Amino acid sequence: MGGDHGCGVVVAGVKLALAADPNIEGVFLVGQKDQIELALVRCGCRDARIEIVHASEVLAMADKPVLGLRRKKDCSILRAVGLLKDGRAEALVSPGNTGGVVAASTIRLRPLPGVERPAIAAVLPASKNEFVLLDAGANVECRPMHLLQYAIMGSVYSREILGYKRPRVGLLSVGTEETKGNELTQEAFKLLQQAPIDFVGNVEGHDLFTNRVEVVVCDGFVGNIVLKTCECLATEIFSWLKRELSQNPLRRLGAALARGAFRTIKRRVDPDAYGGAPLLGLNGNVMIAHGSAGERAIMNVIRLATNATQNNINQMIVQELAATRKRLAPEPAPAADTSL
Amino acid sequence: MGGDHGCGVVVAGVKLALAADPNIEGVFLVGQKDQIELALVRCGCRDARIEIVHASEVLAMADKPVLGLRRKKDCSILRAVGLLKDGRAEALVSPGNTGGVVAASTIRLRPLPGVERPAIAAVLPASKNEFVLLDAGANVECRPMHLLQYAIMGSVYSREILGYKRPRVGLLSVGTEETKGNELTQEAFKLLQQAPIDFVGNVEGHDLFTNRVEVVVCDGFVGNIVLKTCECLATEIFSWLKRELSQNPLRRLGAALARGAFRTIKRRVDPDAYGGAPLLGLNGNVMIAHGSAGERAIMNVIRLATNATQNNINQMIVQELAATRKRLAPEPAPAADTSL
Repeated sequence: MGGDHGCGVVVAGVKLALAADPNIEGVFLVGQKDQIELALVRCGCRDARIEIVHASEVLAMADKPVLGLRRKKDCSILRAVGLLKDGRAEALVSPGNTGGVVAASTIRLRPLPGVERPAIAAVLPASKNEFVLLDAGANVECRPMHLLQYAIMGSVYSREILGYKRPRVGLLSVGTEETKGNELTQEAFKLLQQAPIDFVGNVEGHDLFTNRVEVVVCDGFVGNIVLKTCECLATEIFSWLKRELSQNPLRRLGAALARGAFRTIKRRVDPDAYGGAPLLGLNGNVMIAHGSAGERAIMNVIRLATNATQNNINQMIVQELAATRKRLAPEPAPAADTSL
Repeated sequence: MGGDHGCGVVVAGVKLALAADPNIEGVFLVGQKDQIELALVRCGCRDARIEIVHASEVLAMADKPVLGLRRKKDCSILRAVGLLKDGRAEALVSPGNTGGVVAASTIRLRPLPGVERPAIAAVLPASKNEFVLLDAGANVECRPMHLLQYAIMGSVYSREILGYKRPRVGLLSVGTEETKGNELTQEAFKLLQQAPIDFVGNVEGHDLFTNRVEVVVCDGFVGNIVLKTCECLATEIFSWLKRELSQNPLRRLGAALARGAFRTIKRRVDPDAYGGAPLLGLNGNVMIAHGSAGERAIMNVIRLATNATQNNINQMIVQELAATRKRLAPEPAPAADTSL
């Protein structure tokens, strides 16, 4: 039901995803039944794998997450999370109120042992590699320990899903030196140094797209702003370029000849290529789709979700968090020898 | 002495600036005399307007600002700020340790009445307008009142220097609704609503380059990361594009035909076009140049500095801050009428 474009786009994206992947066993469309049925008719989708699960309420984009969920007990987000909780669904995709999805799934599914807050792990392209930025907006008030947990989760994600053998982890700050940053990052720096990861220290905005790291750790406020700023700037640069390239016949000819180059780069920076990002650290696969996701983006985030069900990284996250806690905890003093 | 490239680049930039602007009366080059003299000889600069002011110490990029300034009493930053303080110089430009410049000039020059912390005001291009982002890194731990002061200073800067009659001010956050954001922005939102500015509410990363506002307010941690991320991404996109455009003869021909378009956009997103940003809110004109500034960037930031000496906006900032304080302060209760 959520997202900026309503349920029509979501249903159209589901149609694309079902057509692309015969291995999808079933899709629950959770929300207001009549609206969903109408959307299915409109896009001519009659896939037998679709099942509608009615929910009488909708958590609006402007609703305060926790308060909204308390008031709207029968909203589609809670129903959808319930399907995961009950084991009927293996993954959840939502382009709705991000805070609502985070709150509902944290409350109902519970975080993994050792995780205090889940994090949105967004994948971005650098010039030679890809890096995962987390948290991209699940938790805007972070403590140093949260950033440590994000570093571990991001490291596992980068290794297991993106395929980097020994992902380098950077802490996003305003200078590379340990002393630079705010109170949060300065404290987190000390924790990350002790974690069983390849921590390279602070990274700056300057370093993001230059292959210095495969994991970028920051609080959800900063991460959300960075992610959206990058998407906006990339889109704008291409639209400025398009305008300039259409200014005269010579440029238009040049643009036509070089078309392939533009396509490659556009594909590289296309936010719809992923369409969304997983919420890491929960007992269950939850994918946050862009609020502005179009049907192609929805299709892609459904692919992300089906992949996630096949690559269960949660157990690794739990193990590595436990190993980290062990490293950080002071050794218990040896029991006094009372046999003498 | 500071900056990533040492004093040779700074001297070369000064040479360009002096050649470009006959109205510059004089330039003090503050730092280690022998190094500066060598750099002047190397770039063949013998302008009589140059005066070397020797300083025996240098605040290194890695030095902690306040501690470093306390230890290095004869460092070039403190000497240069001293020239402003004594009225010998009208503006200061430094590509050195940003924290050091901020601390030295805050301590020696003092903030303007009503300003608690100065802010770096970086100008960025959107598709149709320019916007000023502040704070871009002077103060990484902000309180709501600081953000209010930045909003006023940014508003005055946008109006008086960039020429927007009634600049729209946005508070950088993770959602447009008042309830979205962290504790800092939620509190700042309430203050900004009452300020005598055109406050449009929260803006997101998505909104930065789409002409929604002419002033973007955030804390120095977020602002510094956003600024550097944007510079890095723009540079990377162009380098990816360049690589793609040189892949085959057809693309190379296309790129040659459309060359003008690329030049226009590159100029638009060129961080050297400004070369730096003013530190607003001080009794004196202080310009923070990029640490990575090349000679052209240094020339441009000197131009920014000479312009600043002609457009004195400090008095307006003081007045508008006073008016804001008056609006925010509760009306004094009318004196009880004791005449009856």
